[in-house]
Amino acid sequence: MKLIQEQEKRIEAWMKKIKHKIVVMSGKGGVGKSTVAANLAIALALRGRPNLVGVLDADITGPSIPKILGVKGQTLRAGPPGIFPAIGPLGIKVVSMDFLLESDDLPVIWRGPLKSSAIRQFLSDVAWGELEFLIVDLPPGTGDEALSIMQLIKGIDGVIVVTIPSDVSQMVVRKAITFTRKLNAPLIGVLENMSGFICPKCGAEIDIFMRGGGERISRDLKAPFLGRIPLDPRICEDSDKGVPFIIEHPDSPAAKAFMEIVEKVEKFLGEKEESVK
Amino acid sequence: MKLIQEQEKRIEAWMKKIKHKIVVMSGKGGVGKSTVAANLAIALALRGRPNLVGVLDADITGPSIPKILGVKGQTLRAGPPGIFPAIGPLGIKVVSMDFLLESDDLPVIWRGPLKSSAIRQFLSDVAWGELEFLIVDLPPGTGDEALSIMQLIKGIDGVIVVTIPSDVSQMVVRKAITFTRKLNAPLIGVLENMSGFICPKCGAEIDIFMRGGGERISRDLKAPFLGRIPLDPRICEDSDKGVPFIIEHPDSPAAKAFMEIVEKVEKFLGEKEESVK
Repeated sequence: MKLIQEQEKRIEAWMKKIKHKIVVMSGKGGVGKSTVAANLAIALALRGRPNLVGVLDADITGPSIPKILGVKGQTLRAGPPGIFPAIGPLGIKVVSMDFLLESDDLPVIWRGPLKSSAIRQFLSDVAWGELEFLIVDLPPGTGDEALSIMQLIKGIDGVIVVTIPSDVSQMVVRKAITFTRKLNAPLIGVLENMSGFICPKCGAEIDIFMRGGGERISRDLKAPFLGRIPLDPRICEDSDKGVPFIIEHPDSPAAKAFMEIVEKVEKFLGEKEESVK
Repeated sequence: MKLIQEQEKRIEAWMKKIKHKIVVMSGKGGVGKSTVAANLAIALALRGRPNLVGVLDADITGPSIPKILGVKGQTLRAGPPGIFPAIGPLGIKVVSMDFLLESDDLPVIWRGPLKSSAIRQFLSDVAWGELEFLIVDLPPGTGDEALSIMQLIKGIDGVIVVTIPSDVSQMVVRKAITFTRKLNAPLIGVLENMSGFICPKCGAEIDIFMRGGGERISRDLKAPFLGRIPLDPRICEDSDKGVPFIIEHPDSPAAKAFMEIVEKVEKFLGEKEESVK
């Protein structure tokens, strides 16, 4: 018990040094949460100040942030203040279970309490240092990882909920919005990913995963709508190469749509700051 | 402790009445596990005998099987032998957390032990009856739900691992294969979903999520390759409408590819039966 209290004190101390804590979640898997989290980190880091952005990959059994940010293969070193995060592009600090696994083939066969304890350590024992933004990438579901993050990080600034347009996805993602509200975390808004596809050959617009689902959730649940990002094969290609698509393809409609969403997120954080003053 | 032992005895008794137990997993979310599980159930149920197929939706926080099989809104009734599954198309028996939730907006905010206990009850207290096939649809990850299913169901016939072609997906799905092996469950093979897209307007082939990742995993990890299913907007549309695409669009390349995979699964189960005799 004493250990847990000490741990929570350390978490509180670290989190106080971080100006904005943003959570990216969905409830549903495979909707592009990690791609959104990674590109949001890059967009914020592009401001160019030092010690700007950290990313915590809270997906213990399926970590993919290091691959998408191109920092795979790094290991976490430990020093007197704690474990040092890996350093990604633009100085982004990254912590992920992936750094602790010897090979991609190795599964993390852990029940909830162990996963929660890993998240506790990522928050309490990592020397995050002073940061302007910490972005937490949650795994699918509204279970252990999501609960631990929401309960351990006091003063989360906001949650971005990612969905794809389909009804099946909406059904699950609605739960994430109620989850956020039940845990009293501010909702930044809903982002519709993989929204429509434009054939690169003929220009035809095809709704592979339907369209408009994100807006429907926003309307039904009275949640802000952040925007939609079209499907683009280059997004997947860039993630596989470990180069964020907003850097690799800044002029693509997807990157432009994403940057508009980032502006809304920044506005949300700014507004929140104002209202506290 | 006694309760758990009694529960496990009941699980053993129910499972003995089911000829083949098949698990659909991935490790990764959003690769189409539930669509594969639902359509596999339909393909097997098309044989037309009674008491053929059951589907256990083991995704506690993000259940989508009832929606895809068009049985949403049903409730589970209880009688002297236990809880009766909902009855889906072609007499398929379905059990899912979704039937226990009053609204789609309601999240299941449960840590691991509660999720595992729900899975225990789905196996011990549901009157599955005599079945030829039970298909279990696992959520993403290699945590509580996956572990509980693998440990509670003795004599799993085989595991189908679903991936999309991208490297990011492969990285996570590899873990599911090692997971299956570590838990001594036979691997039926790897299925590559969302593999290539043919523009319905101009016929151009576009690899939205790359291509060949499933085969690469199979080769690297010496696992059988079951085949690839192309992306088709009608698959998402059909899932949203609650009509399995192999019934709604039997002549589509996706349905044909899927039926070839079902044949391989049946062959695997048949071969297994032969070798036991």
